[in-house]
Amino acid sequence: MGNITPDWVYQRRESMKIQRFIIIGGVAAGMSAASKIRNLNPEAEIDVFEKSGYVSYIACGMPYFIGGKVPSSKSLVAYDAEYFKKKRNINVFLHHEAVKINPLEKTVLIKNLDIGDERTYSYDRLLISTGARPVMPPIKGVDLKGIFTLRLLEQGIAIKDYLTNNSPKQALIVGAGSIGMEMTEAFSEIGLSVTVIEKMPNILGSMDDEINEMVEDELKSHNITLIKSKAVVEFTGDNSGVKRAVLEGGESIGVGIALIGTGIKPNSEIAREAGIELGQTGAIKVNDHMETNLPDIYAAGDCAEAYHLIYKRNAYMPLGTTANKQGRVAGINLAGGNSSFAGIVGTSVFKVFNLEVGRTGLSEKDAKREGIDYIANTIEQTSRAPYFPGVSKIRVKLVADQKTGRLLGAQMVGKEGVSKRVDVFATAITAGMTAHAVENLDLGYAPPFAPVFDPVLIAAGELQKKSGLA
Amino acid sequence: MGNITPDWVYQRRESMKIQRFIIIGGVAAGMSAASKIRNLNPEAEIDVFEKSGYVSYIACGMPYFIGGKVPSSKSLVAYDAEYFKKKRNINVFLHHEAVKINPLEKTVLIKNLDIGDERTYSYDRLLISTGARPVMPPIKGVDLKGIFTLRLLEQGIAIKDYLTNNSPKQALIVGAGSIGMEMTEAFSEIGLSVTVIEKMPNILGSMDDEINEMVEDELKSHNITLIKSKAVVEFTGDNSGVKRAVLEGGESIGVGIALIGTGIKPNSEIAREAGIELGQTGAIKVNDHMETNLPDIYAAGDCAEAYHLIYKRNAYMPLGTTANKQGRVAGINLAGGNSSFAGIVGTSVFKVFNLEVGRTGLSEKDAKREGIDYIANTIEQTSRAPYFPGVSKIRVKLVADQKTGRLLGAQMVGKEGVSKRVDVFATAITAGMTAHAVENLDLGYAPPFAPVFDPVLIAAGELQKKSGLA
Repeated sequence: MGNITPDWVYQRRESMKIQRFIIIGGVAAGMSAASKIRNLNPEAEIDVFEKSGYVSYIACGMPYFIGGKVPSSKSLVAYDAEYFKKKRNINVFLHHEAVKINPLEKTVLIKNLDIGDERTYSYDRLLISTGARPVMPPIKGVDLKGIFTLRLLEQGIAIKDYLTNNSPKQALIVGAGSIGMEMTEAFSEIGLSVTVIEKMPNILGSMDDEINEMVEDELKSHNITLIKSKAVVEFTGDNSGVKRAVLEGGESIGVGIALIGTGIKPNSEIAREAGIELGQTGAIKVNDHMETNLPDIYAAGDCAEAYHLIYKRNAYMPLGTTANKQGRVAGINLAGGNSSFAGIVGTSVFKVFNLEVGRTGLSEKDAKREGIDYIANTIEQTSRAPYFPGVSKIRVKLVADQKTGRLLGAQMVGKEGVSKRVDVFATAITAGMTAHAVENLDLGYAPPFAPVFDPVLIAAGELQKKSGLA
Repeated sequence: MGNITPDWVYQRRESMKIQRFIIIGGVAAGMSAASKIRNLNPEAEIDVFEKSGYVSYIACGMPYFIGGKVPSSKSLVAYDAEYFKKKRNINVFLHHEAVKINPLEKTVLIKNLDIGDERTYSYDRLLISTGARPVMPPIKGVDLKGIFTLRLLEQGIAIKDYLTNNSPKQALIVGAGSIGMEMTEAFSEIGLSVTVIEKMPNILGSMDDEINEMVEDELKSHNITLIKSKAVVEFTGDNSGVKRAVLEGGESIGVGIALIGTGIKPNSEIAREAGIELGQTGAIKVNDHMETNLPDIYAAGDCAEAYHLIYKRNAYMPLGTTANKQGRVAGINLAGGNSSFAGIVGTSVFKVFNLEVGRTGLSEKDAKREGIDYIANTIEQTSRAPYFPGVSKIRVKLVADQKTGRLLGAQMVGKEGVSKRVDVFATAITAGMTAHAVENLDLGYAPPFAPVFDPVLIAAGELQKKSGLA
């Protein structure tokens, strides 16, 4: 018995052979993976190639840097390239773009953007974490100065500089998604007059009207102009920058600065060109180990899909939390370990002025589009005991499977206590709970934090009643 | 086939025969049940006998009435007796005490406390919702004026009046439980110098030291004197009220007002005397339908036990939320319907000064006492993104089953974002999730509300690591 080598010894020997790692893209997923590899393999050579000038920055914080709540862009860099080089022995190459992956030779052609030369690097294992880029709408004049997107830290800094140097008075937000909402608040807080234009009839994508109407009221109460069902057809201006936006129908409005927030798409071209399979969404197809279809090539973060626990298929919902988690999983597996990405339920939250807005799982629109036999219901309840100072209203919309009562989604809006209640629903949905089970949860109660029957319980109870299930 | 009478018709006929309901005790459980019966049976005669002068009041709000955050005690009465009589056709008898239950004759002897006479009322079905009363420690002089407990609304009003009429400068809180903490804050906020004395070596019952030490620091920073491992042996004073408290060892301290918060016990004697079985806890034993061992007699609320989903046995953890839920379940079943109480996991939260404190499930002390093979771990993480204004520290302690990794309990303390995160754990524990499953939850993230890796995820991840489970 003693001379049979156990499995883990083989695994260990196998993993020890993997010594050269290349990571393309060094933000959330890439640097999480690099750190994990280093934790698990002190000897490995880890090369991270990052196209931009920063690694490991927190893109989600940029609206608060622009709006002045976060004083320095330095606060948004979790760890800089020097830290990774000196403290973690991870080779970080800034301004280096991956041009081509050769999966047979196991090499990547890398271009040094500072000096322009190209070099080939070889890997034992490769992670593609190239992120995503904004979808630019085909608007004439969209490349005028003063028109920005917001993905890279450089873009956040450029917006801040433009504001300082040009003192625009009027901001235009194109696209009323969550980034659009956060930037609306940011521009408004620093004194700009803000217009939001959304070409769809509703804001916030597939969020339902019951939630959106409270958000629209909040925009109105902060003197934001919201224009729906209309597109920008042209930006006009001069060398100094954008001056006006012409809308469908010919109306035009003054614009000192514009932010395009009309969605993002995965940087998956380099993968596709190397023969790596993309999903229906256009993002890189991965399994729960973050493996692509090609051996020794992994993908994680905003360039990749994520398995959606309710849809039961891969989806493209790029978010910072998912990128970090996928990066960790990829890192462990790249280094020869064994980790699985558990999937997503589509949880997201944002703040706009004094409102917290959040969702998890499916909206009614989503359920309808999927052809699911659903029930939905909306309630209002107080955030604290009704007599407690600071109390405000929370609106909750739930969606459940009509036949089983299983909860499929929750959306919520209110001045306080929304984001963590969304997490309660995210947990319940992940656990496969029915509305009835949620109604019976033993949640905490004290007057400063909740009414006796928390909005979570009331929402589930009313949905349960509507379902007619016992 | 058509002439077979379906089950529900029998059930309906059966339930229609039940027309006379007596409810003993009209606070949370009692009035919830009365309302449910009325909803389900418009014809029923519903008599509620309440010993005190108020029904349906919110006891948990009293510290905030005393501390001045809630201006009027009227705010703490959800619905008054007149409302129930006039709008719901429920007969509410205030100052009426149940003296004796006769289960064979199906009657209750009721004493009118205002005029002293006794009368027998008959029932088809009976609910005992007599609540609980403070455990009075056997301290000499404890009946002096100015020494209070806090259960009834009358007691809250009496404390407020005493403060107004006597302007005490020094408050003594006997017992450092959650009520003691809330009242410490209340007395301190209105300018009293507060001492808390706890005869056990630690505050907050079975909460663990890692949490308690942050609470103690908070007390200290608000100039509260905390004395542990010491009891009050005597109160001294005169006809005008309490003046001093003598402690073990002979030391004495000045006391202008004292609050005894050393626990409560169920008002279960009337049930026991009628032959109704009590549990090991001394509270009334009930099944998930809130039935006692005697036919047509139900019990709910602070006089009754509740099934604990982790201990897998009945427990006595009287809380307002449980009372309301049990009252609803009892009401539905009393009226001939079919509802089950889903059980508790022991979730509770409270506020003390600027801290939120909460727990759900088992503490390490609980797990040790139960002889469970557990692992425990404590972490700290920020409440928001670390660079976001208003960020503060949250400490989380988790306990899990060593063999399976199944989460057994969570405790948490911090300045913000604690109570709803406790609810996330309550949900996960109810669903039977492992630390690994919680670590992988898709929770919401935005800089104002959470760091990329929420304290919930970090706590679960670190516990998972410690467990050594994959």
